[in-house]
Amino acid sequence: MKFATYRDGSPDGRLLVVSRDLRHAVDATAVAPNLLTALERWADVAPRLQALADALNDGRAAGAFDFDPAQCMAPLPRTFQWCDASAFLNHGRLMERAFNTPPIPDFETIPVMYQGASDDFLGPREDVPLPDEALGIDFEGEFGVVVDRVPMGATPAQALAAVRLVVQLNDWSLRALGPREMKSGFGFLQAKPSTSFAPVAVTPDELGDAWRDGRVHLDLQVEWNGTAFGHPNGREMNFGFGDLVAHAARTRKLGAGTIVGSGTVSNADRAVGSACIAERRVVEIIDHGEPRTGFMRFGDRVRMCARGADGDAPFGVIEQRVVRD
Amino acid sequence: MKFATYRDGSPDGRLLVVSRDLRHAVDATAVAPNLLTALERWADVAPRLQALADALNDGRAAGAFDFDPAQCMAPLPRTFQWCDASAFLNHGRLMERAFNTPPIPDFETIPVMYQGASDDFLGPREDVPLPDEALGIDFEGEFGVVVDRVPMGATPAQALAAVRLVVQLNDWSLRALGPREMKSGFGFLQAKPSTSFAPVAVTPDELGDAWRDGRVHLDLQVEWNGTAFGHPNGREMNFGFGDLVAHAARTRKLGAGTIVGSGTVSNADRAVGSACIAERRVVEIIDHGEPRTGFMRFGDRVRMCARGADGDAPFGVIEQRVVRD
Repeated sequence: MKFATYRDGSPDGRLLVVSRDLRHAVDATAVAPNLLTALERWADVAPRLQALADALNDGRAAGAFDFDPAQCMAPLPRTFQWCDASAFLNHGRLMERAFNTPPIPDFETIPVMYQGASDDFLGPREDVPLPDEALGIDFEGEFGVVVDRVPMGATPAQALAAVRLVVQLNDWSLRALGPREMKSGFGFLQAKPSTSFAPVAVTPDELGDAWRDGRVHLDLQVEWNGTAFGHPNGREMNFGFGDLVAHAARTRKLGAGTIVGSGTVSNADRAVGSACIAERRVVEIIDHGEPRTGFMRFGDRVRMCARGADGDAPFGVIEQRVVRD
Repeated sequence: MKFATYRDGSPDGRLLVVSRDLRHAVDATAVAPNLLTALERWADVAPRLQALADALNDGRAAGAFDFDPAQCMAPLPRTFQWCDASAFLNHGRLMERAFNTPPIPDFETIPVMYQGASDDFLGPREDVPLPDEALGIDFEGEFGVVVDRVPMGATPAQALAAVRLVVQLNDWSLRALGPREMKSGFGFLQAKPSTSFAPVAVTPDELGDAWRDGRVHLDLQVEWNGTAFGHPNGREMNFGFGDLVAHAARTRKLGAGTIVGSGTVSNADRAVGSACIAERRVVEIIDHGEPRTGFMRFGDRVRMCARGADGDAPFGVIEQRVVRD
């Protein structure tokens, strides 16, 4: 199943089921008013949503219409929990150099993860309002999962079994604020403004072979102002999503609708480029002694789209512009 | 106005208006089904809730009943955002010694604040399930505020004007996990299990003179297994709640229902004791060369109650037992 959320003036939007090819959609509010409610009642509503999806994909859904990503909020415009890891160690090691922060203890054996703000997510075409270009505006292309309730102490296998949806997201970062917040030990807060999401959240089965080992085996294509920036693949994640969700649930249960992110997708092969500017800047420092790429300016655009070998883009496209608040 | 949330099987519970003396309550679900919804529609519902509170306090509310804190969930059993500061610098400086972590940059001029999990708050009499005594189970007595929508870049005065409710809470901590998470730079996650709240959330006017300068000028009385542990006063907060909320809103807007905490209440005068065990242990290290107090064991109880000079307990009492999950 594929889901999206249309704006309707409410904070949670209204639930759509989207066709496999993202061309058509059908209102699903008769089953659940919004995606958050659907996740809270998953066992009850999933069969009815599946029937709706089947009908839509077979071209026999009453009331189907052309799907328009411009009308989308984030699939979950808000939820009760958002935790983001840094599960691509290649990215983490480069960021230690970028931020000049000390090595993270147990980095290869225990996931690092920060608690993010989940009250205000941005849709795939919404402008990104920020207060000041001087804060070092950067994108971070990631994958994420949305889980059902997870009990405290769940194993990675139990945690993986609780994954209901896979999402693609841009974890916006303000790099001028990150190092001080890391050095405080309290983690990111001002350095992480509202996160953006691709329009379509998909059940893992929709990804076919691209969902295995708790990882998304897809290239994440990133363009900045129309120029290709990177296309790292999600398969190199050093911890799978089962490990990450279990990490989040070690000392407390997780509510249905909790989103857990991968951290910036990053590959050891430099030829594929990066999914954030900070990483490219570190590579420039290594290669040339200084960074050559600046951070984003107001008016800049970023486009992110995960694609399979068949050219399919299962989550749709994030295409946003940064603006002064 | 004073509010509480009774268990009704739903994740958000049902809204009550509570009398000033906490003896009586009246169902308020005809105005708003739960406190989160009330906060989202505050301008609309506040006058009707005030009328209900006035009737209750005058002894003329139809359907009033005896208020029973044992039936309470947290006033907000879940919300979309919870940020907790460390605004009592006395506590922060002692914790640097306890954790042997480096000094926090700009500690006296920029608040430190972590993003907490807001999907699962505990009520005032609920058992606190935790996986292992060896994790260093500690309580942290705090005050907090619940705000309406706050725009990005709000000034401290604007932020203070957005405060709708004041709360009293216990920010449970697992001290064995804290230092590693601080050193990772990503902040607390496993070290912060579900937070507990006193039964009653109050509008600032209910505190009278005890609410001024964006601070709660009340002693927070803490008892551990029936023995007095500390009674520090909220007035020594080095940043007011206006400063803290503005800090959280510097790079993004905050949704209605966001809770911002003070951090552990802590006073320079050692004679008043502490509101967490870790702080007492540092004082013991300073005085005796080693800690003499252990952390909590399964079966231990903690009681927290803010009291005014008149003996009034405006938020009611947190009284919980730690149990093995």
